[in-house]
Parts: sequence; structure tokens; C-alpha cells
Amino acid sequence: MDRVIKYIESNYDKYIDELKEFLRIPSISTLPENKSDMQAAARFVADKLKDAGMNRIEIFQTEGHPLIYGEWLGAPGKPTVLIYGHYDVQPVDPLELWDNHPFEPTIKDGKIYARGATDDKGQMFMHIKSVEAYFKTMGHLPLNVKFIIEGEEEIGSTNLTPFLKQNNDLLKCDAVLISDTALFSPGTPTITYGLRGLAYMEVEVTGPNQDLHSGTYGGAVDNPITVLAEIISKLHDKDGRITIAGFYDDVLSLTRKERENFKVLKFKENGFAKQIGLKELKGEKGFTTIERIWARPALDCNGIFGGWTGLGAKTVIPSKATAKISMRLVPHQDPKKIAKLFTKHIKNLAPSTVKVKVRDLHGGYPVITLLDNPATIAASKAMAKAFGKKTVFMREGGSIPIVVEFAKRLKVSPVLMGLGLNTENLHSPNEHFNLNHFKLGIKSSAYFLDEYSK
Amino acid sequence: MDRVIKYIESNYDKYIDELKEFLRIPSISTLPENKSDMQAAARFVADKLKDAGMNRIEIFQTEGHPLIYGEWLGAPGKPTVLIYGHYDVQPVDPLELWDNHPFEPTIKDGKIYARGATDDKGQMFMHIKSVEAYFKTMGHLPLNVKFIIEGEEEIGSTNLTPFLKQNNDLLKCDAVLISDTALFSPGTPTITYGLRGLAYMEVEVTGPNQDLHSGTYGGAVDNPITVLAEIISKLHDKDGRITIAGFYDDVLSLTRKERENFKVLKFKENGFAKQIGLKELKGEKGFTTIERIWARPALDCNGIFGGWTGLGAKTVIPSKATAKISMRLVPHQDPKKIAKLFTKHIKNLAPSTVKVKVRDLHGGYPVITLLDNPATIAASKAMAKAFGKKTVFMREGGSIPIVVEFAKRLKVSPVLMGLGLNTENLHSPNEHFNLNHFKLGIKSSAYFLDEYSK
Repeated sequence: MDRVIKYIESNYDKYIDELKEFLRIPSISTLPENKSDMQAAARFVADKLKDAGMNRIEIFQTEGHPLIYGEWLGAPGKPTVLIYGHYDVQPVDPLELWDNHPFEPTIKDGKIYARGATDDKGQMFMHIKSVEAYFKTMGHLPLNVKFIIEGEEEIGSTNLTPFLKQNNDLLKCDAVLISDTALFSPGTPTITYGLRGLAYMEVEVTGPNQDLHSGTYGGAVDNPITVLAEIISKLHDKDGRITIAGFYDDVLSLTRKERENFKVLKFKENGFAKQIGLKELKGEKGFTTIERIWARPALDCNGIFGGWTGLGAKTVIPSKATAKISMRLVPHQDPKKIAKLFTKHIKNLAPSTVKVKVRDLHGGYPVITLLDNPATIAASKAMAKAFGKKTVFMREGGSIPIVVEFAKRLKVSPVLMGLGLNTENLHSPNEHFNLNHFKLGIKSSAYFLDEYSK
Repeated sequence: MDRVIKYIESNYDKYIDELKEFLRIPSISTLPENKSDMQAAARFVADKLKDAGMNRIEIFQTEGHPLIYGEWLGAPGKPTVLIYGHYDVQPVDPLELWDNHPFEPTIKDGKIYARGATDDKGQMFMHIKSVEAYFKTMGHLPLNVKFIIEGEEEIGSTNLTPFLKQNNDLLKCDAVLISDTALFSPGTPTITYGLRGLAYMEVEVTGPNQDLHSGTYGGAVDNPITVLAEIISKLHDKDGRITIAGFYDDVLSLTRKERENFKVLKFKENGFAKQIGLKELKGEKGFTTIERIWARPALDCNGIFGGWTGLGAKTVIPSKATAKISMRLVPHQDPKKIAKLFTKHIKNLAPSTVKVKVRDLHGGYPVITLLDNPATIAASKAMAKAFGKKTVFMREGGSIPIVVEFAKRLKVSPVLMGLGLNTENLHSPNEHFNLNHFKLGIKSSAYFLDEYSK
């Protein structure tokens, strides 16, 4: 292992240059205009897997963005690990709030700033580099490795999900290793054992069949923006609980043990609030912030628009108003069931003066992974070695819908060995990735290959 | 008068061509990118006034868009009428809902379709053409005429207001004639004697200092969109009354006589609703639709935006959410007082988890004009002659804030001789102007010059 670790140290500058090249590709999966960039990013990943020493590299075209597969199965009798990551990124707006261009990676104070730096290009790239280090120093890997890298994580993994179903043999493995989560705090080796799910909806309220002059019609017709606002205002009660009937029915309660474990982590509510410019936090009554984020469901408006949104004034009553509303789910809530309950609830709340359309944009299941399986233990040991500290176990508020698909389709318990930080502005302007964690991540990945092969 | 009327008939096709040329200029006052188009439109108006026979044409540059002045004072001893209109128009979005390009005027079924056709280019142009007809046939006008045409009506007449103050002598007159209102129904000669005022506000709610990942933060922070929605939902009570403390204090009650006059007009609520695709109207309890629009104040959201407004999904908790909210006011509400009451109310409604900014974008006073002054009587007779029908008197829901300024600064009661229709999609896609009314308007204007000179 010493040789592998030394190789990582001495090639670190090259890794950074390659990561920069990767981050320059504007692979925004949700925007049609970035379709060719998605192809370029896929080719980049495929090329790097090949350079690292992997075999049978394939780019699978889909109806959306391509999937990249690579394997090395030269260790018969040893376990097989499937490494997952994604090369797609979130949109970059509002662009004016970025200090550097989101696709011109910039290093400052040991952090690399670019869209996708931490979510997930930087984290995914660590594993390609650890494999490369192994091959270059040892000529082989200590176990069998497969890679599956997708370009649709940010838009619901639409094509990977059926691919998993149809390619069970190809992807067969003993463990799935994923780095798309966060460390509990900088420098703390962390395994995440729970993720929230997601039900992402769009609500469109239509009143009049055209925009109206607010002078000529104001006071005589129901206003779609007001109606939408009234609907949104009724989605939480005064205790911060979601009012959708049946919403909490399948929620797995926090155990006393879990709540105690969370307390031990000494999460600092004040620091958390201050970092995002808030004096005051708010959430469901009866729970701490960490419990609200990790283990309780939440409903948020992610976007709203209607009428005149430009500069200055336009005296219009709009025909339509639209909101994007998503719910973070916890085990054992089912996104499909929740989407149905949400739709019914919205229709019930809508007055007869308007028409309401509810669209289910995408969803993902929540997940709790097992702590006692060999891959998780190996990952915990590997991180502890790389960091020189005891690994902690946490849950996280974000969703990686595909994680539950891996569990379901491949019958393995995914290992979430994330190296990001929740303060790294993922999905926001000035996203970045701590380069110290990048390096520790490559080492953790290399140690994992070693530990899990034992 | 016969010769004038005949001249109008025989030059009508030329008038249409000139109107088309006028409508091709995209003079959107609220958009910085149309600044040079505003200049072009002002030059067009000045040229046409000159061609018509007016003297002392001047384009007054302002900090915003130019004002055009023209006069003919060759009838000593006769009254002086000041004709007002505006050459600026509303924005055109959503562009995809137009059947023709908004700045490529198209005639269909006796109507001309273009942004500004009815509001107010077409209506303002009628007066230039009636003056022209008079000059070409009689060599002079029967009374003294001044024109003042502005380019900022749609954005609050920012520069005309101080101009009125500073140029009292220049604009001195016995009557102000304005065509920027509607007929009660097609073919019905109508004088409008009341207009609503306006207080147009912007409310910006700021939560976190940056957009946040809704997975990482969802459930732990107050969401600016939700807060804004809750504020909006509290602006009306269950009877459709506005909840702002003191809002109704200065509202002039409808008299029994006025309510009876309105009833006589036989306003068709069903037809009104159907025309804009609604099954159901909604408004303040205890009032008819026509009363709600003409004589009661109203509050509407004209726009709302925050977070992800593009296609698909972005899992973000936005830093900010913004709404444009305007109130239509009735006599004797004061827009400045209402803006203050609104601001206070919003600040009271805002929870301590967010920061709220309230901006007063613009405002205008409501107005009731006198029915017994000579100019109003002349206008009523003129319309009756042109249409061959008795003139009716109505109020209107829209605002022409400058009307009250004329009354206040020039000490005259403005005459609102509008030839538009409220169904002509003003401020909306497919704005148009009935060309029969355009012709009747030119004749009404000519008859007015004659009647008022007596």
C-alpha cells in the first residue's frame, strides 16, 4: 500500500490538472442546449477509465444522456466492487453570484471552485485515480472492480434505472461504493448510512385564458398567483408539519439510540445558521435541526413564477402561475404514493375559480444502509487509515435516488463514502471541493480496494 | 363640418397606413433596450403634428423618454383645449401567444392587431388626424389646440408630472381631452367620468444568503417562497376584502343613484367571464362585478418569481423570492398613503426568519371628473353626432395617473373620450383596435373641436 499511496502523492498535481479539464465541460443534464457537452463529458470519463487501466470501456447511449461502463475482473475468487458516480451537474444560475465562471475551475485557499467540483465530478474522479495508482504501481488491482457512471443523477437517473434492471449480470457485484455525500465536518472520516428520498412536483394554476389588464379586471377575477400562494400557505401547519393527509403514515420513527448518536456529534446549530446568513432556523416542532435534516421529511418550494418577472412594473393579471414543489422523504415513505397524496391534496385545496395541473417531475426512494456488511466495515477502516482518525456514521438530508435502485436490483447494501462538505455550495453559486479531501478521498479509495480484498 | 367629415372619409386609407407605420415602432417604455425606439416614436409623433398643421412643435428630452408638444393658437377669444395621449406601450411577452408579431400590424375582420393599437397609439392618433382634416379643409381650427404627448404613461408618467408643474403657462388651457379609455360596448358612445388609481409595489423576501441544496437544508430553514406565499395569502380576507389596516378609510362610497345607473347599463357578467375563459368570477362580497371594477379598490399580484423557473427540476431553496403587487385605488384613496399602509402591513406579516424589502414602484391618484362642465358636454354631443346615438357615462377600472395631475396642475376637469374596448387585449397578447371606432373617433374628435368652439 505504501507504494500506491506514494504514487498518489507524487501524481497529485497531474490529478488536479485532469480534474480541471473535467470541470471545464458544462455538463448540465437538465438543459437541452448542453446535450453535446454531456457527450463530451461521457467521452472524458471513458478515456480516463481506459488510461487508468480498466477494461471493456463502453459508452451506452440512452434516450437521455450516456452511461459509461468499465471493468477489471482479473482477481478471481476476490470480491467485486461496483463504483458509481455521476458526471452531470446542476444549472449554474444565478451566474452573477459566482466569483469565477462556473466552468473555469479556480483554486483558492486549497479549494477548487467550479460547478460539479464536489457534486459529483471531483468525488467520482477520486476512484478513477485510486484505481490508476494501483495499476501503475502494482500492475493489477487487489479485487475485481466495475465502474458505472451516469449523466442523469441531477434529473432523476431516468435511464440508469431501467439499465440496472436489464443489465443485472453486467453489473453483478458484492458491494456498491459511492462518493456523493458529505463528511460530517472537515477532516472527519464519515460513512453515511441514510439518505432522504424525493418527490419533485410541479403545480400549475390557470385562471383566465390570457393575461388581463389589472385595471380593467382587477377585483372581479381570482388571481392565479394569489390562488397558488394560498395553496402553498396551506401546505404546512403552525408546527411546521406537512398537512398532506397520510403524509407521515410510513415515516420510520427515530430510535432513542439514534437520537443519542446524533447528539454525540455535537452539531452546532448557531454555526450552521450563521454560515448561510440566518439568525434563526425553522422547522418541524419537536425535533433538532440535525433530526429535521437527516431523519424527518420536508416540503420546499424550489421555484415559483407567474406574470411579470422583469424590471419595473407591468399591470397584468396573469393567466397562469407555476410552482416547483419537492418533498424530501425518509424511510419508508414511497415517492409514488407521496406524489399521489400530494396531487390529491393540491386538487382539494384549489378553489373552483381556477384549473390546476399537478405534474410528477421525478422521485427517488429514501434509504437506510446496513452498517455491519463487510464493504461498509472496509470503507470505515479505509477512511480511518487515510485520515488517521476514527470514522463516524451519519445520515444525510439529500437524495441519491439511484442508491436505493442499486440495493433493490443488485441486492447489495451500498456504501456511501462521501468526501464533500455540505458547506461546499453544491447546487449553488461558488460550488467548490476541498482539495485536501480530494487527496484523502483518493487514498481512502485505494485503502478500500485493499481492505475489501482481504 | 360636412367638408371635414368628408375629408376624413376620403383620407381614411392613408390614416390606416400611417397608423401602421406608428405601430411598427417598438416603443416599450419599461425596457432599457427600447430606448432608441422611444426616440423614434417621439419623432414620428412630432412629424405628424407638423404635417397636420400644428405650430411650435417641440420634443422635450427628459431623464426618461421625450415629451412632444405642439400648438395652434390662431383663434383668439375661443377656448383652448389640451389634447393628451401617449406613444409608449406595454411589453409584449409572452410573445408566443401572439398570432402576428406585435410590431407588425395586421388587419383582420376590421380590427388592427399590434401592441399599442388601442393603448394608446391608435386612440391618440385620431386627434392628430381630426386636426389635420380641419386644417386641410378649413385652413384653420375653430378653437385653440395644444397637444402634449408623453412616452411614460405605462411606467408612471415620471417626467410629465414635474413638466406639468414647471410649464403651467405653456400648457394653460380650458379643457384637457384624453382618449385612453374604453367604450361601454361596441358602437356605444361613452364618456368615462371616473378612473381608479394605482399603488404598485414590489416585495422581496430574503432568507439564506445564497441558494441552498434542498436536500441538505430542507426542513431546517424557512423558505422565502413559502414566506412570500403566506404573506400574499393574508392580503385578502374570506370576503375578498383587503386586510391592510386603514385601507378602506378614504374610499368614496357608491351612491344609490350611481348603483342604479350602473344597473341600467345591463352589464353581462356571464359574457364577461366567458370571454376570458372563466366559469366563475370572484371579488369583494356585497358588490356586483361592474361595481368591483369601477368603484371598489382591488389588490392583485402582477408577478412572482423565485428559485428555479426553468424547465425540469432543480432542488434548491432559493435565497430570495419577489412579488409585484399592485392596488387599484378609488376616490379618495391616496396612493402615497396606501403605499405606506401596505409597507407597514407587509412588515407586520413577515416572520423574523426572513428579511423583507418593500419598494414603491409607482402610483397614481384615482379620479372622478365633473359631468357638467362645457368640455364634457361638448364631448358628449360630439360622440353622439359621430355615432348617431345617445352618449352613456361610465367609470373604469384602469388608471391614467396623469389625468389627476392635469386636474390638479391645470385646474381643469379632464374629459375622457375613449374609443377603445376592454376586450381589445390591452396589456396582453393580440392587442387590437376596432377600425370602425378609429374612424368614429376621428369624427368625434372633429365634432368636439366644433362643439367646444361654440
